Amino acid sequence: MTKVIIIGSGNVAQHLIFAFEKAQKASNEVQLIQVFTRKRESLVHLLDYDRITTEYNELLEADLYIIAVNDDAIQEVVSNLPFKNRLVVHTSGSVPLSSLNNENRKGVFYPLQTFTKNKEVDFRTIPICLESENATDFQLLNTIAKSISESIYAINSEQRKALHVAAVFVNNFTNHLYQIGNEICQENQVPFDILKPLIVETAHKILALSPNEAQTGPAKRNDIETIKVQETFITNTNHLTIYKILTQSIQNNG
Amino acid sequence: MTKVIIIGSGNVAQHLIFAFEKAQKASNEVQLIQVFTRKRESLVHLLDYDRITTEYNELLEADLYIIAVNDDAIQEVVSNLPFKNRLVVHTSGSVPLSSLNNENRKGVFYPLQTFTKNKEVDFRTIPICLESENATDFQLLNTIAKSISESIYAINSEQRKALHVAAVFVNNFTNHLYQIGNEICQENQVPFDILKPLIVETAHKILALSPNEAQTGPAKRNDIETIKVQETFITNTNHLTIYKILTQSIQNNG
Repeated sequence: MTKVIIIGSGNVAQHLIFAFEKAQKASNEVQLIQVFTRKRESLVHLLDYDRITTEYNELLEADLYIIAVNDDAIQEVVSNLPFKNRLVVHTSGSVPLSSLNNENRKGVFYPLQTFTKNKEVDFRTIPICLESENATDFQLLNTIAKSISESIYAINSEQRKALHVAAVFVNNFTNHLYQIGNEICQENQVPFDILKPLIVETAHKILALSPNEAQTGPAKRNDIETIKVQETFITNTNHLTIYKILTQSIQNNG
Repeated sequence: MTKVIIIGSGNVAQHLIFAFEKAQKASNEVQLIQVFTRKRESLVHLLDYDRITTEYNELLEADLYIIAVNDDAIQEVVSNLPFKNRLVVHTSGSVPLSSLNNENRKGVFYPLQTFTKNKEVDFRTIPICLESENATDFQLLNTIAKSISESIYAINSEQRKALHVAAVFVNNFTNHLYQIGNEICQENQVPFDILKPLIVETAHKILALSPNEAQTGPAKRNDIETIKVQETFITNTNHLTIYKILTQSIQNNG
C-alpha cells in the first residue's frame, strides 16, 4: 500500500482530497492517510477528524507528501517539514523543481485544470504533469497519479513553464474575452445567455479540429467590410484595442 | 401546415436542412418543401432529388423563404426572387433587416452558433434570433423556429450587430488564443492535448458563474512576479503584445 499525505486546504487540495477519497473506494492501493491544514474547520466536510492535523510535528510517515498551497507559501511549508530524505512534491505550474528544499527528494505533481470551489470535476480526465529527480521516484508518482487520473505526462520544469503560459492564454485570457462579450451584451441590452452555446461549442470544436482548422470569422476571411463596421460599432477604447490586435494577429496567421 | 423553403447549400443551410428534416419526423406542423442551390450535387446526401431546385422560376409557393448564403451573396439572391409580398428572411448576424428587398416582407432568422461541416450539432439548444417588420410575421417565424430549437429570442438589427461583435470575441478571438496556446506548446515540445480538458472546463465554468466570478490567474491576482517571469519566457513578439494587453485589461477590470 502506498501512503500519501496532502499539505493544504485550498481549492486544489480539496479537489485532490476528493479524488483520492473516491479512488480509494475502488482500490486500496493508494491511501490518503493524513492532511495538514492550518485551519481544521476547512476540511471537516471532507475528512474524518483524526486524519486532519494542524501540527507539522504530527505528520505521519508516508511515501509521498503533496504540497498543495499557493505558490508563495510553498517555501514556508518546505522549511517547516520535520523530516529528511522523503519524497516531497508541489502542485504548482510555475514553481521550478529546484526551488524545493534539498533535505528531501523533490518532485512535481501538477494537475492542469481550473478548479472551482464546490464544483465537482471528473479528476480521471485531468492531465497530471509529473516531474522527479530520479526514475524510482517517477515510478512512484506515476502509480499514485494513475490512481486518480487516466492522463499522466512526464513534463520537466521548462516545459511546465511553457504549459503554464499557454494555460494563461487558453484559460485566463479566454475567460476575459467572455467578460468582454458580456460587457458588449450588457451595453446593448442583449442577454449574455445567447452566447453560451457558442462558447461551449467553440471549446468542443478543438477536440476534433486543430485551432488553425477551427478558425472562422471576419479576420480569417479577411472580410475588411465587416471588420470596419465592427470597429465603428465598438465604442469602448479598451475593447477596440483588443479587437484590432487580435484581428491583426489572425490576419497575419494566414 | 407551414411550408418552408431554404435557399443555399453551405454550412448553415445544410445544418438547417438537417434540423428541419429531423423535426419533421417528430411533427408535420412545419415542412421543408424545397431547397434552392446552384449545384444539386451539394445536397443530394441530405434531400430527395425532387425537393432540390437550381432554377429561381421553379421555386414553389411557401410561407417562409430562408436565405442561408454568404453575406455578400444575399443581395443577388434577393434580386432574383420571382415573386412579391412573401416573407423572406436571411440568417446573417451582420446584415441589417433593411438591406433585404422591398418587394417582399422582410425578416431575420439568425442561428447563433459556429457550424462545422460534417459535425452534427444539437439544434434544439441553439439560440435563434428573430426579427420581422410586423407581429404576424414574427408569430410565424416563432412557430417555425420553435419546431427546431428551444431557444428563441426577439433581437432587432442593432442588438444583432452587438451580438455579432460579442460573438467575434468569444468565438473567433477565443479560438485564436487556442491557436497561440498551440504555438507555445509546439515551440516547447509539449503536446497541445494536455490543454484540452482545461479549454473545455473554462467554457463550462461560464454556464454556472459570471465571467467576472470565473476569472483567475496572475493578472487577476495581480501577481507581478509571475507576470514578469512569463513575459520574459515569451519570445514571440506578437504573443508578448497580446499577453501584455490582455493582462493589463484584466488588471484594469479590478
